[in-house]
Amino acid sequence: MQLDVLFTPGDLQEVAIEGRTVLVVDVLRATSTIATALAAGTPTVYPVESIEAARALAETLDGAILGGERGGVAPEGFQRGNSPLEYREGSDGRPVILTTTNGTKALQRSVEAGAAHIATAAMVNARAAAQWAVEQGGDVVVLCAGTHGQFSLDDAIAAGCIVRRARSRAQEPVTLGDGAAAALALWQRYRENPLEGLLAAKHGRILEQLGFQDDLNYCANVDALTVVPVMQNGRIEAL
Amino acid sequence: MQLDVLFTPGDLQEVAIEGRTVLVVDVLRATSTIATALAAGTPTVYPVESIEAARALAETLDGAILGGERGGVAPEGFQRGNSPLEYREGSDGRPVILTTTNGTKALQRSVEAGAAHIATAAMVNARAAAQWAVEQGGDVVVLCAGTHGQFSLDDAIAAGCIVRRARSRAQEPVTLGDGAAAALALWQRYRENPLEGLLAAKHGRILEQLGFQDDLNYCANVDALTVVPVMQNGRIEAL
Repeated sequence: MQLDVLFTPGDLQEVAIEGRTVLVVDVLRATSTIATALAAGTPTVYPVESIEAARALAETLDGAILGGERGGVAPEGFQRGNSPLEYREGSDGRPVILTTTNGTKALQRSVEAGAAHIATAAMVNARAAAQWAVEQGGDVVVLCAGTHGQFSLDDAIAAGCIVRRARSRAQEPVTLGDGAAAALALWQRYRENPLEGLLAAKHGRILEQLGFQDDLNYCANVDALTVVPVMQNGRIEAL
Repeated sequence: MQLDVLFTPGDLQEVAIEGRTVLVVDVLRATSTIATALAAGTPTVYPVESIEAARALAETLDGAILGGERGGVAPEGFQRGNSPLEYREGSDGRPVILTTTNGTKALQRSVEAGAAHIATAAMVNARAAAQWAVEQGGDVVVLCAGTHGQFSLDDAIAAGCIVRRARSRAQEPVTLGDGAAAALALWQRYRENPLEGLLAAKHGRILEQLGFQDDLNYCANVDALTVVPVMQNGRIEAL
C-alpha cells in the first residue's frame, strides 16, 4: 500500500485521491474536538464550511448545537467554540453542527476530490484512525488541514504520528511518499514530547496566547481515545 | 526577520512574497547545476519553462548551449542534460539556456509573484546563498521547486540546510515560520549524511535508478561552492 501525507488542502490540485482512504487532520483543534465529541456520545457532527450554512442547518435540525470558531473563538450566537474540552460532557443526544476555519474545509475538499473513505484523525485518536484506514484495504492519504491554506507544523507532526501507526499496522509492504517520510521524521523529533511539537507551531503559540493552554495539553494526549469519526453523506459519526 | 520555507510553488497562492528575498531550491538537480555552471565560468544561465521557448531563445543567442531535461534526460537536439557534472568544465564563455521540469517553473513563479530579490540555492552553495539572502535585509523565503507540483523531500532537506545557515548568519532576531521549522528538523535528521537524505526522497531514488548516482553524490556536497546565482531580468548570473 501507498501511504502519503499532503500538507495543505491545496495539494489536492496536484495529487489524485479518488478512490483512496483519507484521514483529515486538524489537530488544533477541529479533529481533536470531533473525536472528543463522538467519544462522549454525541451522535453526529455535521461539518459545515460557513457560519451562514451552520445557522441554516441548525434551523432544520431540531435541538442541534452550534459549535465552531473564527479566529479561535465561537461566532456570535454559537453555543460552543472549538475547544475539545467543551465537548467532553457529550450533548444529551443532540447533534453538533461544527464550522471551523481549516478543518471543515479540508473535509469538504476531500469529498469533492472523490475520496472513497474519509475519517478525521488527531493525536488523541491516532492509533484507532490509523488502524481503520489500513483496514479499508487501499492506499491511504493523510490530509493536513493546514492554517489558512498554508503548511502548519502541528498538523504535520500529528500526521507523522498517524503514519507511524498506520505503517506498523499494515499487513502488506508500505511505500511511504515523500510527505509521509517527512512527517515521520517530524514525529520522531517530537514523539517524546508531543506538546513541545504543538507549541513549536505558530498556531499552537497563538492558541496559548489566547489562553487555550489546557486545550494544547489535551490535544497532545496521544491515543487517549479509540473512536474513529467516519464521514459519510455530510455527517461524521463514530464507527 | 521572518524566515520561511514553502514546499511547493503552489503555496505561492496562499503566501505573499512580494518584496521579499526568495531562494529557489531544486536540489535534484536544476539549482545544483546552475551553481556549478556559474562557478565554472559560464557567464549566464537563461532559465526557460518550455522546450519550445528554449529552442526559440537559442535562435537569438549566438553560440548558446541548450541544456535541460524532461524525465531526467536531455530533450532531443539539446547539447547537454541537467547533470551538474556536465557543467563543471564551463562553457567557453557561451551562455546556457536551461529548461527543467520543476526548477525553472519555480523561478518563473517567483518572478510573477513579485519577489524583490531572487537567487537559486542548493546544498552545494547553501552557505553562500544563505549569506546573500540575509544581506538583502528583508524577510527571506526559501521556495522548494518540488516534483510535479508536489512536496519533494530532497528539496525540503536542502531548504533546512539553507535555513540553518541563514539563521546563524542573521544580525537580527529571526522568526521561523512553520515551514522553516519543519525543514530545519528534517535537516537535523539528515545533516550527518545529506546523501542519505537525497536517497530517502522518491526523486533521488528515481535518479539513482536512471544511473545518476554520481550526480547524487555531487549534489550532497554541502557548501562546496561559494557562488550565488542571482536572477534578474530573466538571466541568472554569478553575484
